[in-house]
Amino acid sequence: MDLVIGIDIGGTKTKIGLVNSDGKCLEKTFFRTREYPDLNDYLDRVAKTSNELLAKYDGAHVLGCGIGAPNASSKNGTIENASNLLWKGSVPILSELQKRLDMPMRIMNDASAAALGEMLFGSAKNIKDFIAITLGTGFGAGIVANGQLIDGYDGFAGELGHVDMTIGDGRLTGLGVKGGLEAYVSATGLKRTIMYMLSKYMIDSRFKNVAYNDLHGEDITQAAEEGDEIALKAFDYTAKIMAQALANFTAFTQPEAFILMGGLVNSGKWILEPLESYFNEFLLDVYKGKVKIMQTGMEGKTAAICGAAALIWEGQKS
Amino acid sequence: MDLVIGIDIGGTKTKIGLVNSDGKCLEKTFFRTREYPDLNDYLDRVAKTSNELLAKYDGAHVLGCGIGAPNASSKNGTIENASNLLWKGSVPILSELQKRLDMPMRIMNDASAAALGEMLFGSAKNIKDFIAITLGTGFGAGIVANGQLIDGYDGFAGELGHVDMTIGDGRLTGLGVKGGLEAYVSATGLKRTIMYMLSKYMIDSRFKNVAYNDLHGEDITQAAEEGDEIALKAFDYTAKIMAQALANFTAFTQPEAFILMGGLVNSGKWILEPLESYFNEFLLDVYKGKVKIMQTGMEGKTAAICGAAALIWEGQKS
Repeated sequence: MDLVIGIDIGGTKTKIGLVNSDGKCLEKTFFRTREYPDLNDYLDRVAKTSNELLAKYDGAHVLGCGIGAPNASSKNGTIENASNLLWKGSVPILSELQKRLDMPMRIMNDASAAALGEMLFGSAKNIKDFIAITLGTGFGAGIVANGQLIDGYDGFAGELGHVDMTIGDGRLTGLGVKGGLEAYVSATGLKRTIMYMLSKYMIDSRFKNVAYNDLHGEDITQAAEEGDEIALKAFDYTAKIMAQALANFTAFTQPEAFILMGGLVNSGKWILEPLESYFNEFLLDVYKGKVKIMQTGMEGKTAAICGAAALIWEGQKS
Repeated sequence: MDLVIGIDIGGTKTKIGLVNSDGKCLEKTFFRTREYPDLNDYLDRVAKTSNELLAKYDGAHVLGCGIGAPNASSKNGTIENASNLLWKGSVPILSELQKRLDMPMRIMNDASAAALGEMLFGSAKNIKDFIAITLGTGFGAGIVANGQLIDGYDGFAGELGHVDMTIGDGRLTGLGVKGGLEAYVSATGLKRTIMYMLSKYMIDSRFKNVAYNDLHGEDITQAAEEGDEIALKAFDYTAKIMAQALANFTAFTQPEAFILMGGLVNSGKWILEPLESYFNEFLLDVYKGKVKIMQTGMEGKTAAICGAAALIWEGQKS
């Protein structure tokens, strides 16, 4: 059996799994990224964990290892200035990991990897123009036009989380961008919006008893289910800014669809219903009725791993 | 000799010329678009003028006619809801013109045509990722990534003039988009900004004696040369918003270059120097030093005609 190692390096978790040619994740595990502030320790752990997974599939043939990471450059094999990771500057992750795992290896921006995954295994099998959006700790985008992933001159296309939505008068992102989109539209952005709503309204809310660092996305969804007005206002506010951003992005490449994945999407109708409604309101007439908002066609918990694995499977299938 | 008819349909002028395989415009003329509110009269005039130009090149072989127009869909052969043109709704311009001029014909968004022109004849002969920006009555963009023009699902990619820069609290564009980019960054936007600066500052300026409809871009450049502070403030303001927009666009496809053309570029250093300076300030660190701002490599007065002609020459050369 042929297998690919898929690694998703996230701000919170590093997920590693084994993915077959159907895009099915046969085995997976994770550890907390921040427990390894030293890059060498981190890569040792990645290699060790990968080998442990492989040991369970004794007869398998490993085709290679695909890695998705924030701010990764596919052309340089690096992660550069990622605001949600501890390693600073330009990190030569591909060459360093290859010393520990000797096999074909590719790295790509996590959202671009997700877009490849959607094309190979998910919702975009028949779509030539779309944008995959990952809503985790940050906001990532993988852009496909004319059936091709857009890399950009230097491998850094799709950094839409740092697009300024406010002409210099808004929240700071982790990269210090004022008014940057991901300061609003991401799991972290939603938490910040809960704080904002507590500053703005004198309404009873369960969040008056919760510290920022104890706040989790699932709690906000749960609160919305229970009718907590601060939670409902936070979802509406997040959806409105996201809808404006997606309407703007539509004017760029006119995608047939946006495909959403990541933690914030797990909030379901609380984010998706106002998003759909504001999006149709903000869209230019020329685009109205032509742009779908879809959810990932990959299994939620393993989508990022399968996307990373798609970097290797892509070459095998073509 | 092989020739192509290039037609640029602008909000103010319709320019028609004959272009050879080197991208040289051998013969050209224009008339005012708004003098023909009836589409049939307009198309009759286009056909008549084209035939008059061709009559001067008796032995020439005409390969076809390329048309650049705002809000044109290459896939549908139409112009749809163009805010700077008098004909409303969806205009089937290609099929109607073909009844009058029987030859191969293509239409495309004017800025996309300009981008093709830059690839064939201008500044982008060796550039695979760039964005061509036309700064005339409106703001247009032609996006090239991986060496391919991005059309979008339905032919309407690159409508960046209607990107909202202010989260719903700014000037209205001709399409009614609040805070839309072209309401600020275009020849029209610059005129509106002169009005804004007159509202904001009590400074002596030649523009206190000029009505909006009598204001022309060349006068604003001339005033800047003479040190008129309202003109200088207007250029600075326009350049700052444009720089923010280009910095945002960089995060989208990471172009190697922006290639600028159109009336506003004729203001030269008054717009380009503050633009360059703000752009380098606003650009994310990961992009700094990697994105060039260039001017069209086509001759200014005929660039739009040559871009339109490139639609036909492209097929001949490949």
